[in-house]
Amino acid sequence: MGISLSDSKNSSQQESRQDYLAIAKALAQEFAATAIERDRLGGTPKAERDRIRASGLLGLIVPKEYGGIGETWITAFQISRELAKADSSLAHVYSYHHLGVVIPYLFGTEERKAQYYTDTVRNNWFWCNALNPLDRRATLTPDGTGFLLNGIKSFCSGSKDSDILPITAVREDTSELTILVIPTQREGVQIHDDWDNIGQRQTDSGSISFNQVRVDGSEVFGARTQVDIPFRSLRACLTQLNLAHIYLGIAEGAFAAAKDYTRNQARPWLTSNAPSAAEDPYILKHYGEIWVDLQAVGSLTDKAALILQAAWQKGTELTAEERGQCAIAIATAKVAASKTGLEVTNRIFEVMGARATTSKYGFDRYWRNLRTFTLHDSVDYKIQDLGNWALNDRLPNPSFYA
Amino acid sequence: MGISLSDSKNSSQQESRQDYLAIAKALAQEFAATAIERDRLGGTPKAERDRIRASGLLGLIVPKEYGGIGETWITAFQISRELAKADSSLAHVYSYHHLGVVIPYLFGTEERKAQYYTDTVRNNWFWCNALNPLDRRATLTPDGTGFLLNGIKSFCSGSKDSDILPITAVREDTSELTILVIPTQREGVQIHDDWDNIGQRQTDSGSISFNQVRVDGSEVFGARTQVDIPFRSLRACLTQLNLAHIYLGIAEGAFAAAKDYTRNQARPWLTSNAPSAAEDPYILKHYGEIWVDLQAVGSLTDKAALILQAAWQKGTELTAEERGQCAIAIATAKVAASKTGLEVTNRIFEVMGARATTSKYGFDRYWRNLRTFTLHDSVDYKIQDLGNWALNDRLPNPSFYA
Amino acid sequence: MGISLSDSKNSSQQESRQDYLAIAKALAQEFAATAIERDRLGGTPKAERDRIRASGLLGLIVPKEYGGIGETWITAFQISRELAKADSSLAHVYSYHHLGVVIPYLFGTEERKAQYYTDTVRNNWFWCNALNPLDRRATLTPDGTGFLLNGIKSFCSGSKDSDILPITAVREDTSELTILVIPTQREGVQIHDDWDNIGQRQTDSGSISFNQVRVDGSEVFGARTQVDIPFRSLRACLTQLNLAHIYLGIAEGAFAAAKDYTRNQARPWLTSNAPSAAEDPYILKHYGEIWVDLQAVGSLTDKAALILQAAWQKGTELTAEERGQCAIAIATAKVAASKTGLEVTNRIFEVMGARATTSKYGFDRYWRNLRTFTLHDSVDYKIQDLGNWALNDRLPNPSFYA
Amino acid sequence: MGISLSDSKNSSQQESRQDYLAIAKALAQEFAATAIERDRLGGTPKAERDRIRASGLLGLIVPKEYGGIGETWITAFQISRELAKADSSLAHVYSYHHLGVVIPYLFGTEERKAQYYTDTVRNNWFWCNALNPLDRRATLTPDGTGFLLNGIKSFCSGSKDSDILPITAVREDTSELTILVIPTQREGVQIHDDWDNIGQRQTDSGSISFNQVRVDGSEVFGARTQVDIPFRSLRACLTQLNLAHIYLGIAEGAFAAAKDYTRNQARPWLTSNAPSAAEDPYILKHYGEIWVDLQAVGSLTDKAALILQAAWQKGTELTAEERGQCAIAIATAKVAASKTGLEVTNRIFEVMGARATTSKYGFDRYWRNLRTFTLHDSVDYKIQDLGNWALNDRLPNPSFYA
Repeated sequence: MGISLSDSKNSSQQESRQDYLAIAKALAQEFAATAIERDRLGGTPKAERDRIRASGLLGLIVPKEYGGIGETWITAFQISRELAKADSSLAHVYSYHHLGVVIPYLFGTEERKAQYYTDTVRNNWFWCNALNPLDRRATLTPDGTGFLLNGIKSFCSGSKDSDILPITAVREDTSELTILVIPTQREGVQIHDDWDNIGQRQTDSGSISFNQVRVDGSEVFGARTQVDIPFRSLRACLTQLNLAHIYLGIAEGAFAAAKDYTRNQARPWLTSNAPSAAEDPYILKHYGEIWVDLQAVGSLTDKAALILQAAWQKGTELTAEERGQCAIAIATAKVAASKTGLEVTNRIFEVMGARATTSKYGFDRYWRNLRTFTLHDSVDYKIQDLGNWALNDRLPNPSFYA
Repeated sequence: MGISLSDSKNSSQQESRQDYLAIAKALAQEFAATAIERDRLGGTPKAERDRIRASGLLGLIVPKEYGGIGETWITAFQISRELAKADSSLAHVYSYHHLGVVIPYLFGTEERKAQYYTDTVRNNWFWCNALNPLDRRATLTPDGTGFLLNGIKSFCSGSKDSDILPITAVREDTSELTILVIPTQREGVQIHDDWDNIGQRQTDSGSISFNQVRVDGSEVFGARTQVDIPFRSLRACLTQLNLAHIYLGIAEGAFAAAKDYTRNQARPWLTSNAPSAAEDPYILKHYGEIWVDLQAVGSLTDKAALILQAAWQKGTELTAEERGQCAIAIATAKVAASKTGLEVTNRIFEVMGARATTSKYGFDRYWRNLRTFTLHDSVDYKIQDLGNWALNDRLPNPSFYA
Repeated sequence: MGISLSDSKNSSQQESRQDYLAIAKALAQEFAATAIERDRLGGTPKAERDRIRASGLLGLIVPKEYGGIGETWITAFQISRELAKADSSLAHVYSYHHLGVVIPYLFGTEERKAQYYTDTVRNNWFWCNALNPLDRRATLTPDGTGFLLNGIKSFCSGSKDSDILPITAVREDTSELTILVIPTQREGVQIHDDWDNIGQRQTDSGSISFNQVRVDGSEVFGARTQVDIPFRSLRACLTQLNLAHIYLGIAEGAFAAAKDYTRNQARPWLTSNAPSAAEDPYILKHYGEIWVDLQAVGSLTDKAALILQAAWQKGTELTAEERGQCAIAIATAKVAASKTGLEVTNRIFEVMGARATTSKYGFDRYWRNLRTFTLHDSVDYKIQDLGNWALNDRLPNPSFYA
Repeated sequence: MGISLSDSKNSSQQESRQDYLAIAKALAQEFAATAIERDRLGGTPKAERDRIRASGLLGLIVPKEYGGIGETWITAFQISRELAKADSSLAHVYSYHHLGVVIPYLFGTEERKAQYYTDTVRNNWFWCNALNPLDRRATLTPDGTGFLLNGIKSFCSGSKDSDILPITAVREDTSELTILVIPTQREGVQIHDDWDNIGQRQTDSGSISFNQVRVDGSEVFGARTQVDIPFRSLRACLTQLNLAHIYLGIAEGAFAAAKDYTRNQARPWLTSNAPSAAEDPYILKHYGEIWVDLQAVGSLTDKAALILQAAWQKGTELTAEERGQCAIAIATAKVAASKTGLEVTNRIFEVMGARATTSKYGFDRYWRNLRTFTLHDSVDYKIQDLGNWALNDRLPNPSFYA
């Protein structure tokens, strides 16, 4: 649309962004063709992961000076949203890759940042996530110049077929939850095939066992809860806003699927006077209400992405106040995305009718995926955080989830 | 509870009712043990259907004078609700059995009523449903003293492993949608294995083909839409109120499962001050709100069941006005059950957390079953009917669904 | 309607109940004529209070052996609901009269019960309420054989023009919140004209000052919180269920007013194809949804009234468990009535349109009255109580409000 | 906040905008002091209207070349929102002034535009609104070189104390609803004191009678429904988005008032463990949910304002497609603002408690104002329009309200 102010500025930057978004959309279209069948199967989407590897998009967030594409989080999140419309499992593992890629920067030194960025691009590494801070069963024991990693970690999304593992483990000497990064192939690491859940079925979010795994001192990045520098705690912001985008993408995918079905297959109800389902007053009202809710979430996520990108660019200059404002904008978007997403993925059936429950359409996967993923962390306590801000002008304490 | 007035009266009748309800509860408990696995498999619950056959409950609604148990619809619906808590597919096929059993009474003569009631008990027939009035592809062609049945019928719940088929077909000579009843084993009847939907997976609600099936004149019961006698149109009321009970049962099953999980497995959120999930203020609020909604639906369905039973007992004396009042009470209960049920089966996850999405728990089946079954007929137009009553004092026209 | 089972039983009892309900309905109709104007004025509805006095209905709940009418709480609450449809201020003060009448029975001896019941009938006393347990500024100081009452009490509904005052005050010697009953005209009692709120404007729920008021020992009824006998704590149940009935009555009054307006004055919207507002699909949907919600609340309140009456009849035999079950049924009804009532009194405007905001119609008073009265006690914590029951099988502790 | 991208750009333009917004905020603060009392009184806020006249803000939207301030609609709507927080009646009449000021430009020639802009600034005219297209009782009869205006017009906001009247009347010769603009003081114009509604009480939205009023040909601006040029139909967009901003402002005013009350006057409920109301978990949840909803509406209105301003700047170059996109963005914002506003203005009482219903606080006026103003046009049919866009890709037909 010609008159949108926001689209007309920064046209050259926009163009490059559109290129990567276009690649992602093409991938999404490809993944969509098999998404229903793969949802049924669960397991690892190996072929699709390799298509991502081949697309060049693994370097999306790595700055150009390290050989990466150097795109913004705004673009990264837009890609999460696009992929999620078609296949939220792939959106999940691809986007958590970025959340892994930046760990050495967030929690390490300039040297480590440079090294990991460079290595990621050179080796086309596919990162994953084994940080789950609520699971403290993995331990890190000092041993000579390095450490030994033992125990188990749950909810390790994307670990199968990954190249590199960011992990948290409890240091036995300090009791601190500590971040480390090791290759997935390291001896003693065993990734289990134990992810069989009702949604996000191809995310391999199962468990990993560590048995006397050797970890070098250079692979350890310090405490997960370092709060000396607000910038470090942006990790939670990145995760949370990525979730909001995926939730929204799932809802938008459901909306698009329903729209297609209502227009092409649904029939007006027996006592409706409408010539077609698409003219029925109640069906129109459902679509109108869904539209408003989706637009609201889109607005909030877009706004939060601008704020987060600005915060990211401040790097270690970022103040605690700015970080807090950023967290509030993100929490707002995420709460709205959760609520609207669950509503939309349930409600689409009202505008399609009984025949749309045929398994071949897979229309329930939107709800199952979102129902699963929105349980990532407590919505009630996220709302409490927002209440504390709204009522008491208190910014949330940086944490794993806020 | 000792002080409930409604429980203390009519104690002897209550006792007998409790006996059958107790049998049903025992069956439900048995079915619950395999419900998750059978939901995954889909197909025909043959062993469970045979357990129902062996339970003696197929004669529940058949009057004592014909050898049946002679229970009320109140009891029948309570059993639907009990079974639905554990396995809504079995609730579905067992309750539609009753809806079939009474067809000869509703649409036929006293003689037919007597004959089919008697035969049902003597042969322990398991009825099913092939009445879907929206599918007019089956035709009935006069042929000599009888008819030939051809074509196809969809959404034929419980047809596999059934003994007898109530069907609607369009009479070629009159274009009327006509009811007939034939044995499932009749030559030319082919039941397809084509029910694979996201919910109610063991209801065999697939299609049946009819190829030159011979139908005797005595097996034909006249037009589906006979409105000369209000009593005939009670069939839709029975179906609708049965649905309300099953919806409620599914929601109550979800509630019970969540309650068990929250108490025994859920953990309070990281930033909750509660000593356990079961003491968390937000979790308590969810349970309180769910409670209120379920109680409201329970009240409305109980009330509608009393009214429907009274209407049933009036038989052909039932007036159009009384039938209309009955339909309004039922529609009210069903709309409430649909709304609350979808809300509850979605919301239970909020009070359990991420680990409750593990497939082995099967907690998503409540939503999938209800999401599927609440699409039986349009909720929007049911609400419109209620609006017409509330605003314009207009009772609904008797129809297949109202 | 002929087929309703509940209406056909106990016909003689029904008849008498209908008589008193008929009187109340006639009063309601009379009050309705001036309700809008009196809402604007606020102050004391003296003429209407005198009409109630003259109606004979002040003895409604007093047993026949003491000269009263001896009706049940079921009838009393139905009258609350009927009056509330027309004028919720008068419903308020009339129903709180009953809540006062039974205080000597609930908290006193058989002798006191007999005395106050008898005196109430003989003198046609109009009771009120000055019990507000959250306001502990009134004190009772032993003085000779009696006491001196000093201080202030807020939210004293119906105190103006009342004949007798039930009060709570903190005993200086024991710190217990103690119940006493004195004539309104007692020296040192000053009722203030300070009730000017947005709703329930003619309830005179202002404050009373006590200045060295002499109280005889026989006028003191012991601690408000006596929990030795579960029956005593039924006072909170009576209050709560009365509130539920008034909330429902307000909502039903709003519904009836809107129905009349939509049918006779509203116009279909510019782009509606409907021939009249009453045929508009969206307006019908509003009415249908409102209908379902009102029916649900009606069911829950009716059920709770049966349970409460049964509990009342048990008297001091009532067990703590039975009292708890009763409290749960009541809380359920009240939470539903609050939620639905606020929704309905707001939503009626959607089905009437802009011209319905003219002050002369007074359509906002339903919301203002309900908005005010639903703040009587915390809905959130009532829901928490219900959650504790639903999840933890814990009955609420008897309290001022539960 | 330093990192917000949107605030940091265009700093000089921002500054000027901030100046006018600051003036408006100062006025709002001033008006707030008497808003509760004036709401009670109703009638014309003459002193406040004169303060607006004196503020210089009547020329806000008039381009600089005609002596005006030349601000954007973005600023104008921000001022609507600011004023509405304090006093939505004054927000109403002040913002409708702008909607009048641009009528000669929208519906007239370049010459008329210049003339009326210039005269408005020179005379410091305060415009109003007598366009109500649904009331077709005013007629315009050709008479010599001019016309005679007769009849009546309802809902004429801001007409009392106005200087100039934009009116629609039905031309007797063509039956077209025609726009004309005349001085309020013209002979034969009688403004009635008949606005007494439950909300927006100081908007003087009553009726005007016209008795043989002479209208010059140059005062007639052609048909209201000219659709030859999409730009003309932007009038409805301006109105609708202004409404969205006022609705949002009312909700934000309610939120701010509640926040102040909860922090300074509310008490935690009896059974709450929180040390203060502001720490209560349920109160925090209410605030969190209100926050999310208000942020969503804020985002949508901000976005729509950018789009509308861009559309405005295109002038007669604006295409029908662009106009349609603009209308969709505005309808989305307005529907969200209506829903959230009604929810918030009702819900604030939950976080304040019973004592907040005291009339002196006037907390009900937020709901009364919004309840009244949201009935400006049908929300249901606005949602239907959005459904037609969402489902059928059909842009709304330009109309009085879309």
